[in-house]
Amino acid sequence: MASNEECFFEGVEKLLEIWFTTSDQAAGKSNGADLRKIPRNQLESLLKIVRCEIISSVRNDHVDAYVLSESSMFVSKRRFILKTCGSTTPLLCLERLLLLVEQYAGFNDVEDIFYSRKNYKRPELQVSPHSDFNQEVALLDTMFPEGAAYCLGAVNRDCWFLYTLNPLPQTPAAVLPPGVQTEADQTLEILMTDLDPEIMCIFTKEECLNAAEATKKSGIDKIIPNMMIDDYLFEPYGYSMNGVSKTGSYMTIHITPESEFSYVSFETNVPSGSYRETIGKVLDVFNPGKFTITVFANQASQARELPKELHFQSKIGDWNRREMQVCHFKNYDLTYLFYSKFPS
Amino acid sequence: MASNEECFFEGVEKLLEIWFTTSDQAAGKSNGADLRKIPRNQLESLLKIVRCEIISSVRNDHVDAYVLSESSMFVSKRRFILKTCGSTTPLLCLERLLLLVEQYAGFNDVEDIFYSRKNYKRPELQVSPHSDFNQEVALLDTMFPEGAAYCLGAVNRDCWFLYTLNPLPQTPAAVLPPGVQTEADQTLEILMTDLDPEIMCIFTKEECLNAAEATKKSGIDKIIPNMMIDDYLFEPYGYSMNGVSKTGSYMTIHITPESEFSYVSFETNVPSGSYRETIGKVLDVFNPGKFTITVFANQASQARELPKELHFQSKIGDWNRREMQVCHFKNYDLTYLFYSKFPS
Repeated sequence: MASNEECFFEGVEKLLEIWFTTSDQAAGKSNGADLRKIPRNQLESLLKIVRCEIISSVRNDHVDAYVLSESSMFVSKRRFILKTCGSTTPLLCLERLLLLVEQYAGFNDVEDIFYSRKNYKRPELQVSPHSDFNQEVALLDTMFPEGAAYCLGAVNRDCWFLYTLNPLPQTPAAVLPPGVQTEADQTLEILMTDLDPEIMCIFTKEECLNAAEATKKSGIDKIIPNMMIDDYLFEPYGYSMNGVSKTGSYMTIHITPESEFSYVSFETNVPSGSYRETIGKVLDVFNPGKFTITVFANQASQARELPKELHFQSKIGDWNRREMQVCHFKNYDLTYLFYSKFPS
Repeated sequence: MASNEECFFEGVEKLLEIWFTTSDQAAGKSNGADLRKIPRNQLESLLKIVRCEIISSVRNDHVDAYVLSESSMFVSKRRFILKTCGSTTPLLCLERLLLLVEQYAGFNDVEDIFYSRKNYKRPELQVSPHSDFNQEVALLDTMFPEGAAYCLGAVNRDCWFLYTLNPLPQTPAAVLPPGVQTEADQTLEILMTDLDPEIMCIFTKEECLNAAEATKKSGIDKIIPNMMIDDYLFEPYGYSMNGVSKTGSYMTIHITPESEFSYVSFETNVPSGSYRETIGKVLDVFNPGKFTITVFANQASQARELPKELHFQSKIGDWNRREMQVCHFKNYDLTYLFYSKFPS
């Protein structure tokens, strides 16, 4: 697939996940606080600040899932996920978001925040503060005094940035309302580059008439079965999909197919004691040259045993493990892995 | 202890450890290659580039240990360690060092390199390239195509930088000469700040007549017994010591006692399956407000089980664990921990 510098697109997403609570401890569970009470027109003006818009949505009892012009947004009772690629500016909407949440949703406190992204292919094309992780951190630090910023992987090669809360043990902020966070939570993300050009051709209007055809032809529909799928094939290239399950789990895939800057992201919170099968399916579908895997798992999650499983697995198929790091945070364990084909 | 901005001293060291080998595989083990063949006057001119000098030394069959005007240097058969504080410039001597090693010591290849340091208290007082990790990495990248740079801990708080080799698996560079690296190797480092002012007073000419008195009064002599100790008490403040054991292990301690920027580093390669006792002794002797622990352990080292031991230990005495990260490299596992007293 031909492409030139002028039509470069940054597939790498900025991923913002925020969990809300109320400082009145029992209230958050019982007073009907719910992020889905934020009106649609308010969400739309929020996304204007981010420089993207809603192009499709599906919902069930657990989650509202939006496909955006640049990636996805998921809104559930107390979890807000905004994942946006290109030169979007999600951190600029934070202040407005917190106001909307207090005004409409009934929450008054941020329980946890996870802002993360891979290193960009072309950081110089980003809009402030997003071109530099230090600038993103400086903005977040003004809002979250207990925020901590990390870089996983090799700073001078492929790496992945994270900002999260890491409060002092035994300070009030670390004592959660009873029952909160005992629900299992986990997120698996696979960020792929240098993808197979023949596979990438599927995600173009030249090869597929519509998104449904691309979803089926690529095998995306078989990665996690029984998902309600909302997919979108962009003109002339590009693909996004959200999937939601009856139990409230989600998956989301975004594809930048152009060969000079091909990029695919896969993300899900489907609970599992072993992601080996899911990872294998994703790699079969996309055949990337390089990929990072990140797994967050809290104490109640089955996925917490993942580092032990992966420790001795220095290869997955044709891919060699280049990096493995494990971080232990207040509520979550994070595993970071980087694999590449040889020769890279 | 009084101090003002004008007499600020950066206790945080830059730590450079290099293992040499020969690309002629069998030769390195048998042809008498030895870093200790580098003449003393050549080492002295090397250290001029770094902006420090030798002030004392001891040696045994395994290692030459030098106390420097700014910290320490250890030279053994194929391992070179240079640890320098203040505004020294150890990376500027690298090119000269590699020449000396080839010319005098008989090695022609770098098997592994570890360049590390904590974040400085005052980076703006450092000399280029040392004021900025990215600059240090850029210099190292010109010399080591397979170098990888990491930041452990929170980028926006206390953190620790590392540059090491992380070659592709199965590339020629990763295939080591037979027998090499099967020897157990491990390094424990504890970097302490916000130290107990009463203890810090020991390391002044006001309170102690000489280094031997400070070593004994503080309890340093009991941290690891049976070491030949070379200690030095600076005028008017400050302390350095090297210890070497008959089996070739070393320990080294450097103390900046001034209360406004107090800093103590402890480092040893003594093998152990559990560093709990050593860590406890070090904390008893110095009583820091905050400290990082780093442990490198290769596959043959008993210390490799350390992460499992530490995983469930979220407190050590009065100190709460704030960070725990584990990285798996080609030959070494690295554990990074950060603890602070509450309230910090």
